[in-house]
Amino acid sequence: MTEFTLDPRLANDTHELLSCDDFFVLLNKNKSLPWFIVVPKVAATEWFDLSQELQSQLANLLRKLALFLQQEHQCDKINTASIGNVVSQLHVHVVGRFHHDPLWPDVVWGQELPFSGYSENELSELPQKLRQALEVL
Amino acid sequence: MTEFTLDPRLANDTHELLSCDDFFVLLNKNKSLPWFIVVPKVAATEWFDLSQELQSQLANLLRKLALFLQQEHQCDKINTASIGNVVSQLHVHVVGRFHHDPLWPDVVWGQELPFSGYSENELSELPQKLRQALEVL
Repeated sequence: MTEFTLDPRLANDTHELLSCDDFFVLLNKNKSLPWFIVVPKVAATEWFDLSQELQSQLANLLRKLALFLQQEHQCDKINTASIGNVVSQLHVHVVGRFHHDPLWPDVVWGQELPFSGYSENELSELPQKLRQALEVL
Repeated sequence: MTEFTLDPRLANDTHELLSCDDFFVLLNKNKSLPWFIVVPKVAATEWFDLSQELQSQLANLLRKLALFLQQEHQCDKINTASIGNVVSQLHVHVVGRFHHDPLWPDVVWGQELPFSGYSENELSELPQKLRQALEVL
């Protein structure tokens, strides 16, 4: 497998929570919303260009992340999206939304979201919690 | 199967292109961007609450719609998203984007997009074209 390099804008905006053979699971540094970003470790810009096998794995991973968000945060809605107009490296957002969140009911992209950071403690605990929820990683 | 009723806001904003047992394929009335909306005919608000079988069918349909957009319109990017903050009835957007489109690189949701309508001719031809591209419907 050739080396995969995360787009520097994604790397800059997120904490790396998990890394397995085929995916990174990233966390948006802004804690104002629970917001994961999944990046398949392949040179692709569209999810439907992935192999059938990777598409299935990706869907499975997104589903588990969404269920994790619902369970951990009792989100009112999950927003799942593959956009990539600014950062073309394929990445998929899974965002937990609440009726009372600062942007509701607007989408989160291209909006100003008040910044709040994760604590060291939260960042050290999340990967283990997530690993259990995702089972596969 | 119980009768399924499309949310009136979705019905109002779109043309119904295709309807099969499990899905509606809708077209945003605004021609400024090629924009499909897929609605599974079940009472659900989240894609990951669908049965495994329907999730696979949905992914397959979204992939074919995206490929259709690329082939027909030579889109620079496809935006795929399940949001549902305003209309909670489960629906998934597949939007063809262009580097020169009026909203690029912003997302399309919550933005003012100049309106342009489809002709009667286009609306009568599209379902047949799409049926061929999707094969299954």
